[in-house]
Amino acid sequence: MAARKATREREREGDDLSPAHPLERLIFFSDAVFAIAITLLVIEVRPPHLPFHTSDRDQLVSLINLTPSFTAFFISFFVVGAFWAGHHRAFSLSKHWSPKLLFPNILMLCAIAFMPFATAYMGLNMGQRVPSMLYDAVLMITAILNIRLVKLATSPPVVDERADPLAIARTRARGWGVALGAAIAFALTFVFPPISQFGLMTIPIWLRLSIARAERRANATVRPS
Amino acid sequence: MAARKATREREREGDDLSPAHPLERLIFFSDAVFAIAITLLVIEVRPPHLPFHTSDRDQLVSLINLTPSFTAFFISFFVVGAFWAGHHRAFSLSKHWSPKLLFPNILMLCAIAFMPFATAYMGLNMGQRVPSMLYDAVLMITAILNIRLVKLATSPPVVDERADPLAIARTRARGWGVALGAAIAFALTFVFPPISQFGLMTIPIWLRLSIARAERRANATVRPS
Amino acid sequence: MAARKATREREREGDDLSPAHPLERLIFFSDAVFAIAITLLVIEVRPPHLPFHTSDRDQLVSLINLTPSFTAFFISFFVVGAFWAGHHRAFSLSKHWSPKLLFPNILMLCAIAFMPFATAYMGLNMGQRVPSMLYDAVLMITAILNIRLVKLATSPPVVDERADPLAIARTRARGWGVALGAAIAFALTFVFPPISQFGLMTIPIWLRLSIARAERRANATVRPS
Amino acid sequence: MAARKATREREREGDDLSPAHPLERLIFFSDAVFAIAITLLVIEVRPPHLPFHTSDRDQLVSLINLTPSFTAFFISFFVVGAFWAGHHRAFSLSKHWSPKLLFPNILMLCAIAFMPFATAYMGLNMGQRVPSMLYDAVLMITAILNIRLVKLATSPPVVDERADPLAIARTRARGWGVALGAAIAFALTFVFPPISQFGLMTIPIWLRLSIARAERRANATVRPS
Repeated sequence: MAARKATREREREGDDLSPAHPLERLIFFSDAVFAIAITLLVIEVRPPHLPFHTSDRDQLVSLINLTPSFTAFFISFFVVGAFWAGHHRAFSLSKHWSPKLLFPNILMLCAIAFMPFATAYMGLNMGQRVPSMLYDAVLMITAILNIRLVKLATSPPVVDERADPLAIARTRARGWGVALGAAIAFALTFVFPPISQFGLMTIPIWLRLSIARAERRANATVRPS
Repeated sequence: MAARKATREREREGDDLSPAHPLERLIFFSDAVFAIAITLLVIEVRPPHLPFHTSDRDQLVSLINLTPSFTAFFISFFVVGAFWAGHHRAFSLSKHWSPKLLFPNILMLCAIAFMPFATAYMGLNMGQRVPSMLYDAVLMITAILNIRLVKLATSPPVVDERADPLAIARTRARGWGVALGAAIAFALTFVFPPISQFGLMTIPIWLRLSIARAERRANATVRPS
Repeated sequence: MAARKATREREREGDDLSPAHPLERLIFFSDAVFAIAITLLVIEVRPPHLPFHTSDRDQLVSLINLTPSFTAFFISFFVVGAFWAGHHRAFSLSKHWSPKLLFPNILMLCAIAFMPFATAYMGLNMGQRVPSMLYDAVLMITAILNIRLVKLATSPPVVDERADPLAIARTRARGWGVALGAAIAFALTFVFPPISQFGLMTIPIWLRLSIARAERRANATVRPS
Repeated sequence: MAARKATREREREGDDLSPAHPLERLIFFSDAVFAIAITLLVIEVRPPHLPFHTSDRDQLVSLINLTPSFTAFFISFFVVGAFWAGHHRAFSLSKHWSPKLLFPNILMLCAIAFMPFATAYMGLNMGQRVPSMLYDAVLMITAILNIRLVKLATSPPVVDERADPLAIARTRARGWGVALGAAIAFALTFVFPPISQFGLMTIPIWLRLSIARAERRANATVRPS
């Protein structure tokens, strides 16, 4: 009995060490910034305020006029959601804390925190060149900062030694999907701005190609015969 | 002494594995989005700013004029709170991570994050058809996305194998309560918009009926004699 | 070695059960709502925007004109901070989950989430009766909802059986401090609104009296000789 | 089987004790406030809304006119990020809960929560004396509250007894970096406001000097020969 209690004591002591586990806190803080940025997106869509006897038709028109802002909201919601999922995927392969994570992580979060501005600016001026370029540029920068952070989180000394090399290769490859899609959208703004955001629809293609390439490479490394 | 330290080391190593437990992070991120959306609701209620020597009466009138916005705030606070409680209930029965959760969860959070807009729009234009329809439509969509997510969280491979089948049946049944109440409210907007939101008051009835039906079914399955 | 591994396995299994520990999630969600409400307070203070060649004097004047909003911000920051500390104190004595916590907790959070509005309204119309009354009424309601929630969290089935009865008595007593201070401030708005918020300064007195009374009572119960 | 279940029960009981670990909750709440304050910074940058046929040039000009707001956003993002990192560093050396932490922590968070206002005010009136002085004063106050909090977190009874004294000395020394940089910037506003924020660029120098001094001292104490 006494031994058992002592064991539990020791276990709790070990537990006590973790309240401020540095890696957990970094992940937690990042989750909170992602969650706030994603939820603030809607704040920038201003609800119309019409007099009481407005006809249904006029109400509908005022709502339809917000389509660009809604579109920008939905695009950004899934873009930020995808970056969160990528962060989630990368850090599920990590295990050790390193102070080297701090700056690249805050830099990436800064780009994410800037998204509500870029989204609102694009939503208010949909189809124009400069707002679309700014939006796509922010996306590209975020994607590049993300690629760098994912690499750090899945490399020594941060990575979990028991993590599957194929999972690491796939997770790193995913980072390129958004970067390439944003680059295409950015290029399209020079041609015809109103359709440029369709460039982001190529992201799934780049994802698939990039992951397939990573898998081929990883297999080649693991089984070099 | 050395052995002791080694044991602690090993224990901490085990502990270290969990900082990024994927299911925990998903739950955490969802909690944060729910919390932000629910707290942002009030931001859309603009406080009146009157000159210093305004009479108490005029101050009261300006406050009473905000009644529609307050009503919309309170309805939405409890609606989002109920969705959070449903998410909480469903995931308390889950145990394993599955990447299949990612997209349905982010889709549901997107509907939740949209609530501050729908709420503010209804509050600013209370009693009109289009804002009420939009609000009820958003509620119905959220409820349907929620039903789907709850099903995923309480099915293999995510569900905890030891979870009580009756608790699962009850949790899934609850999802239908909000969906049906919102559908009634939506239908009422065609008849007489100013009273449509009372349709939401039927939610407790649907909840009870839906849970009772689930219990009957579950009992029939467990004891088929 | 094998046995050891099995033990660790079992421990991790136990750990796996907790990702969605219901009490932890409730606490977490509440913390997030408190944190967001407390940080949103400043959003309602609108920064002055003056032309570039404004004199230092005019800039200072525009800042000094914001004094009421700053005052309201600081009062509310510490009020919400105190409610958070009370929640923190109460739930540090709790241990078991009960679905009965859900509704009283969400009701209390609703009052907290309403604070940014009450604060901004008081800040914009400082010294007037109606805004001060609304603010103090919201405070009183929050305090009463808090007293009820603290009682629930420190009673069976939620309370930790090993919690010190004196600590429970003290924690419950604290709830009365804010309620009484807010009641004094509310009463003062009928007399002379501009000084009513000073009523909140009596909170520490009520706190001390209330805790002293609880301690006397608790001692009387524990040692009835 | 029964024994197995009993063991698990007891383990879970032990686990149940930690949901409301007071130090963890304090850290969590602080992380949330930091995350919200840092993400709200961008909300104060108002996106320009121009008519549809605005030329690219005019769009660019309207964006360039926001440079002061962008600058203020980026400065504050890294300043708040640095304070978070300092909080993170200090509490990674702490282990025990003490109610003495509550007030100094909430005071520091109050200064952090005020940053979005100070940032927006400086951004809207860049290069003017009063906004720059307010910003630098807020920074200095935050830095001083931070130094006090870091000291508390790395002293008994809060500090982890096994924490490296050199790490403690370094962590405490870091607090002086921001304080001195903000003091320089504050002093520069008296000379020539438009360049005063460059004073913040001296932070890394003070950091290095302060850490070097702490290391020399710590070495002198540890090895007094």
